[in-house]
Amino acid sequence: MRDACELLGRLARERRALLRGDFTLSSGRRSGIYVDLRRLLGDGHAFLAALTLLQAFLSRELEEADYIIGVATAGIPWATALALLSGKPMLYVRSVAKAHGTESRVEGGEPRGSCLVIDDVATTGNSLARAIKALECKCARISAAVLVDREEGAYERLASMGVTLRALLTLKELVSCAEKHS
Amino acid sequence: MRDACELLGRLARERRALLRGDFTLSSGRRSGIYVDLRRLLGDGHAFLAALTLLQAFLSRELEEADYIIGVATAGIPWATALALLSGKPMLYVRSVAKAHGTESRVEGGEPRGSCLVIDDVATTGNSLARAIKALECKCARISAAVLVDREEGAYERLASMGVTLRALLTLKELVSCAEKHS
Repeated sequence: MRDACELLGRLARERRALLRGDFTLSSGRRSGIYVDLRRLLGDGHAFLAALTLLQAFLSRELEEADYIIGVATAGIPWATALALLSGKPMLYVRSVAKAHGTESRVEGGEPRGSCLVIDDVATTGNSLARAIKALECKCARISAAVLVDREEGAYERLASMGVTLRALLTLKELVSCAEKHS
Repeated sequence: MRDACELLGRLARERRALLRGDFTLSSGRRSGIYVDLRRLLGDGHAFLAALTLLQAFLSRELEEADYIIGVATAGIPWATALALLSGKPMLYVRSVAKAHGTESRVEGGEPRGSCLVIDDVATTGNSLARAIKALECKCARISAAVLVDREEGAYERLASMGVTLRALLTLKELVSCAEKHS
């Protein structure tokens, strides 16, 4: 995925999606680097370019999937776009069940068959594992994919649940490609 | 919008997006009817059909907009899809600022110019008004649109902030069209 790395690295740099500082991640861990891939959405060209890379990378998974499922909130735009491009139905999983309305965690319908779970970034895999737990009794098969894996245990965490995590890039690759072009 | 009403009414019925029961809405109000437009996402055809109606209804707003902004979480899929179809950048507004990462409320970048705020359903307008408050100092002009307006004050609430709310359908229209086809 050298081309993907170079293109995504350039987009991440141009859109300032890689931030240096002192950040607390959603896992609770501290980090000197933060990947904010939502910044790609805020530029029509960058969103479409990253989306095209992701779609090509996941071509087999998208073909096999009966449902594309976004992890709220950052996974929803990517899942929506992949669903539109592949003509597949789209659902999303909340991090906690809603206190009003239908009180659902899985929104949009009842998934079944092969489910492809999408998030933007994986760190320890906590958010993905919670989403997968909410889907385990509904989907016959679950696979998961992210744009960037920070490689802090997500792959192993999901593997222990029988789910393969695919990542377009690791954080190390993204940083290296972004800095090569700076 | 008779055609929109008939098509959306049929889709809402087929996808069971109109639920009868005892519901607490996000505004805190109780209601005997709940509109769950997320159920349209969970069917590739229904999503695309509703999206096409919304895109046609908002053609002028989409052309004028510099940013399409989704209200989290239910507004994000519609905003993403409209942004992709119109080639415009997309952002989203959280209901509360995140406690980790960049601690942002507006995710994806810094909007400016003309901002089109998208949600699925409006009731009292609370969620839309909170999102608009977070955007007021950034956007030069703000307009707002939903698929369905429950007509419980959202239009007036937004008008008092100088923002026009456009709705593809009122709840009354949707229910009437859905029941006509049942």
